[in-house]
Amino acid sequence: MSAVARVKYRVIYGDTDCGGVVYYANYLRLFEIGRTELLRAKGLTYREIEEKENLILPVVEAHVRYRKPLRYDDLVLIETALTELKPHKVRFDYRLLVEDVLHATGYTVHVPVNKEGRLQKFPEPLYHFLEKLILSEKSVYKNE
Amino acid sequence: MSAVARVKYRVIYGDTDCGGVVYYANYLRLFEIGRTELLRAKGLTYREIEEKENLILPVVEAHVRYRKPLRYDDLVLIETALTELKPHKVRFDYRLLVEDVLHATGYTVHVPVNKEGRLQKFPEPLYHFLEKLILSEKSVYKNE
Amino acid sequence: MSAVARVKYRVIYGDTDCGGVVYYANYLRLFEIGRTELLRAKGLTYREIEEKENLILPVVEAHVRYRKPLRYDDLVLIETALTELKPHKVRFDYRLLVEDVLHATGYTVHVPVNKEGRLQKFPEPLYHFLEKLILSEKSVYKNE
Amino acid sequence: MSAVARVKYRVIYGDTDCGGVVYYANYLRLFEIGRTELLRAKGLTYREIEEKENLILPVVEAHVRYRKPLRYDDLVLIETALTELKPHKVRFDYRLLVEDVLHATGYTVHVPVNKEGRLQKFPEPLYHFLEKLILSEKSVYKNE
Repeated sequence: MSAVARVKYRVIYGDTDCGGVVYYANYLRLFEIGRTELLRAKGLTYREIEEKENLILPVVEAHVRYRKPLRYDDLVLIETALTELKPHKVRFDYRLLVEDVLHATGYTVHVPVNKEGRLQKFPEPLYHFLEKLILSEKSVYKNE
Repeated sequence: MSAVARVKYRVIYGDTDCGGVVYYANYLRLFEIGRTELLRAKGLTYREIEEKENLILPVVEAHVRYRKPLRYDDLVLIETALTELKPHKVRFDYRLLVEDVLHATGYTVHVPVNKEGRLQKFPEPLYHFLEKLILSEKSVYKNE
Repeated sequence: MSAVARVKYRVIYGDTDCGGVVYYANYLRLFEIGRTELLRAKGLTYREIEEKENLILPVVEAHVRYRKPLRYDDLVLIETALTELKPHKVRFDYRLLVEDVLHATGYTVHVPVNKEGRLQKFPEPLYHFLEKLILSEKSVYKNE
Repeated sequence: MSAVARVKYRVIYGDTDCGGVVYYANYLRLFEIGRTELLRAKGLTYREIEEKENLILPVVEAHVRYRKPLRYDDLVLIETALTELKPHKVRFDYRLLVEDVLHATGYTVHVPVNKEGRLQKFPEPLYHFLEKLILSEKSVYKNE
């Protein structure tokens, strides 16, 4: 079973800017689609984490390396891997490809916070769920 | 005292699309800036309506007429007027201008809803506040 | 053969606002996904219209009626129909549904413009292509 | 003369998400507003760079550290400094503050590219213009 989630996204006009390419902020929208899909593919939705665990996972850090511009109508393959897990922290790494060519990489780091906004550890069952998703071949997917 | 609020907005890359102009959805962002400014200029913030009146004003209808494209770095003058008020409904009309030339017009219709999502009348004090903002010279500002 | 295109879209965090629902401007992103899909399903991409016909189709009018709020993680069914065609104008109508319940309707009107920004007639072949897409059961799909 | 540009931005509904805070991608919109303002404050617009120098400055790397969430109606102070300049590369660092409290930091790296998409050196006059903006007190502004 692959620990890397793959989902496709078709670029629309609304994602692009007047430079003729996808606006740099919108790569983070694609990353969101990717990590949501990774969880969903493994049987958990982010909505369930929020509702059942009474927990949110705000982002504390984001990084993008733009290699080749994404363009209107491109069918982007979003690859997402869970590359790091600590009791208070989880990291996802992303690769964006068009027709097998790498266009961008990046990562986001998230921390578990309760509804009152206080940092907390991952609850045991969620931690174990995430643990099973950690990617072994880190060399490829963990960017910089 | 003019009942029309005027506020300026500088178009950024992130507002535009690969057609070289502002993406059509983002005109509704400019309308939001306009109506927020109209309330604020008259001494009320939308945040206060939410918090003090325990009320939100979801949009039930929006319309835009695109006349000339807005472009990157344009300094857009957003004019907003309250053009209709009923116990259960308020309408704002908008005009977007660049260097005195009209580029777009539009309107939005909003209804008062309580935090449980139920339609309700405007509370008396808020209704009277809004009543004073109604534009008399409707001919100019109420679009179509 | 149905003249109505149907495509699904999963709502992400980035589409929503702090009111807990999809931001009102982002309904126009969904409409763009819908009309692009209608053309693609019939064998033509919008990119091809731009490149082969040397033509763009800027929007001159947009309208949305918000009936029930779209929320995070909703799987939205976007239905699009071509409801009006004139030599200088085409109109698309949209319906957004979640689990068979209608949440929003709307339309956009577009005009053919050449790369120099001048209004022109649809070229013959494109006009005939679009003509075959016109919806007969207008009663259902043409909103207001 | 301070080499740090300061510009204010009022958060709208359209910037936020259903977590009740500004969506993480939209911090990059604020960074764009910041670096545009830095150039403008020193007498050069990004539009002029594009048009006169026949040059664009695509972003090759972006990083954000989210410290405290930005919220609806916050008046955000965007501070921008040019912190690194090489013949083929320029870096901007950003700090976002609300009421003097630091909420986020980040940076973007850009490279000069001609209209044909080829990497090139900064033209002499532009390089000298940017050189004068380099921040000396790097310790404060250059993040991580």
